[in-house]
Amino acid sequence: MLKLQVTGKTILSSIRCRRKMSTCSSYTFGPYKIDPREVFYATPLSYAMVNLRPLLPGHVLVCPIRLVPRFTDLTADETSDLWLTAQKVGSKLETFHNASSLTLAIQDGPQAGQSVPHVHIHIMPRKGGDFEKNDEIYDALDEKEKELKQKLDLDIERVDRSIQEMADEASKYRSLFDC
Amino acid sequence: MLKLQVTGKTILSSIRCRRKMSTCSSYTFGPYKIDPREVFYATPLSYAMVNLRPLLPGHVLVCPIRLVPRFTDLTADETSDLWLTAQKVGSKLETFHNASSLTLAIQDGPQAGQSVPHVHIHIMPRKGGDFEKNDEIYDALDEKEKELKQKLDLDIERVDRSIQEMADEASKYRSLFDC
Repeated sequence: MLKLQVTGKTILSSIRCRRKMSTCSSYTFGPYKIDPREVFYATPLSYAMVNLRPLLPGHVLVCPIRLVPRFTDLTADETSDLWLTAQKVGSKLETFHNASSLTLAIQDGPQAGQSVPHVHIHIMPRKGGDFEKNDEIYDALDEKEKELKQKLDLDIERVDRSIQEMADEASKYRSLFDC
Repeated sequence: MLKLQVTGKTILSSIRCRRKMSTCSSYTFGPYKIDPREVFYATPLSYAMVNLRPLLPGHVLVCPIRLVPRFTDLTADETSDLWLTAQKVGSKLETFHNASSLTLAIQDGPQAGQSVPHVHIHIMPRKGGDFEKNDEIYDALDEKEKELKQKLDLDIERVDRSIQEMADEASKYRSLFDC
């Protein structure tokens, strides 16, 4: 790794960040196009985006860049990168939202509740008492997954969150990864 | 890779399997010792075990060998190996149980419902109609996680599944990984 003296730290950080963050002009999520303003972190193999209707503050999705429906369809490199991305994103958002735990889940296939046929990890920062019963988060998750598809199908009906609101949230998160 | 003619296939498979399957005399799950007969697949960094009280046929746990409570505590190698193991185990058990989807989830920390402070992935093969409402699996998962801890705390009260029953199930699954 390149080492610079005295003032090197900032320069080096900047170089490293640019290398790490890999941006595209558009992202695919199943049959849908995702506005890159909704994406706050990306590698050459994975991306993390804010949610149309988050269940809790910091409820985001981490997906492989390549459109594959099932977890087993991912190559070893994609699988590793996806979960290293989820680990990093989860850790940053847990701290950012002053949470103390994380829920990480894949609904892998239609019989597991997957509505958009593109692998995606749900990440939710958790706090004591955020749901009256802890497991209610999953009921809600399932409901939201159905709504997500409906909302993506009916793009004009995005009444809950505007692209601007989502872009603003993504922008905040993006700054967490600026080393 | 070593290639042998004609009769080589069986011999080669056996060599490869021995290399892949890394067994220990005992496994740690949080503060508990796990009987190796309950473990059906292992690598130098991860292991997969059957469940004391499975929610569904094929409901198993995949854990890192090293006892760490939180997902972010894992090294990059451990994270990759854990999820590559989960991917492999999930795929094999989905086929074995004639299922068509998988639920994969980590309750990462006490506020997410984790009861045993050792990272573990729940893997559940899913079929249409296995739960009346798909999301009920998570209510049940949460309940089972609490019961798991109680049962591990009170080892003699393992009335639901005997070690023999668990060892028999693990033995069946173990054969799935014999290449």
